[in-house]
Amino acid sequence: MEWLKDTFEIRTNGKGMLPITHEVESRLRAWGVREGMCFLYIAHASASLTISENYDPTARKDVEAYYEHAVPENQPWYQHTLEGPDDSPSHIRATLTQPSLSIPIDDGQLSLGTWQGIFLFEHRSRSHRRTIELRCLKVA
Amino acid sequence: MEWLKDTFEIRTNGKGMLPITHEVESRLRAWGVREGMCFLYIAHASASLTISENYDPTARKDVEAYYEHAVPENQPWYQHTLEGPDDSPSHIRATLTQPSLSIPIDDGQLSLGTWQGIFLFEHRSRSHRRTIELRCLKVA
Amino acid sequence: MEWLKDTFEIRTNGKGMLPITHEVESRLRAWGVREGMCFLYIAHASASLTISENYDPTARKDVEAYYEHAVPENQPWYQHTLEGPDDSPSHIRATLTQPSLSIPIDDGQLSLGTWQGIFLFEHRSRSHRRTIELRCLKVA
Repeated sequence: MEWLKDTFEIRTNGKGMLPITHEVESRLRAWGVREGMCFLYIAHASASLTISENYDPTARKDVEAYYEHAVPENQPWYQHTLEGPDDSPSHIRATLTQPSLSIPIDDGQLSLGTWQGIFLFEHRSRSHRRTIELRCLKVA
Repeated sequence: MEWLKDTFEIRTNGKGMLPITHEVESRLRAWGVREGMCFLYIAHASASLTISENYDPTARKDVEAYYEHAVPENQPWYQHTLEGPDDSPSHIRATLTQPSLSIPIDDGQLSLGTWQGIFLFEHRSRSHRRTIELRCLKVA
Repeated sequence: MEWLKDTFEIRTNGKGMLPITHEVESRLRAWGVREGMCFLYIAHASASLTISENYDPTARKDVEAYYEHAVPENQPWYQHTLEGPDDSPSHIRATLTQPSLSIPIDDGQLSLGTWQGIFLFEHRSRSHRRTIELRCLKVA
């Protein structure tokens, strides 16, 4: 077994889900991983990771819209508003989605379902540079 | 260390949480795993995994009912309704729960708490065949 | 590669997020882990793990308040109320956050972002003794 690692940055452009499947797959391919486990970690408290529908862009739009409805800005009970109305909502949305993902690799491919993609979920209104940690336990 | 893997299918019967602890435990037992880590991954964007109360069926009923209340069907702002009123809610509920789980194995047992069980959470109204990927890092 | 493990208990004092980054880091340091993967698992159905903002206490207060608003007690449709009004809300909140986390270790440090901390999220009103399982795949 071999341990492989990389860190990559994604430039976000305000709130929304950005596909990162390709960024992950290209690294696993470069490493020649046939079998093993892929670990992803996002080092931010106002952005997160999620796996979601990757085919129809309206599916993603609805997921994004849900978080706007379910975790609205400008609630009277928010105390943490120093960085703007997206401050607390961004942290709350991050706790509702994933900071870490673990995805099997089989036959040289991530075991994603037909409709699944990996996304960086930006919860901030402004653009940010986000760091994602990729680790791979290469079995073959 | 040894890498073990299996893929199994669960037939769902509409929305709800289906216990899969036994399906996982029986495979780990067959492999003779005494110590290590169990990784689960669900390869679907409209179903997910969760760990929840496994003793009183009403606890599960309330968790299921919560997602009906919190992510209701037929919202006017849903754009993605091609496959029916459960379409976008199914993807949203999947992002709120887990696509991947990692559970320690100790002394030949998953480190589940007394009241914990592993569940496949089906978010679609119709029955589906769902694929779950099981991976095990066997340490002993 | 080496497999290291420990189990530790945290005494909670009613609902809220308790920082446990130090408990994890001190064990990794004692083990001399320079590189690898840290796995955390909480063996309870009414408490969970989350990674969130660790700097400004009001950020945490807002995350905690959110779950009170989003998963309120005393809903007429709750069936599982045997252990009090926090019973079903505690299980629901646990499914919305994480039972397991996987965090890379690099250069002797968890790959936490500047503002991130690891928290045990207690969802019960009364104090409890909570068990957290720590596993480490030590690569170097």
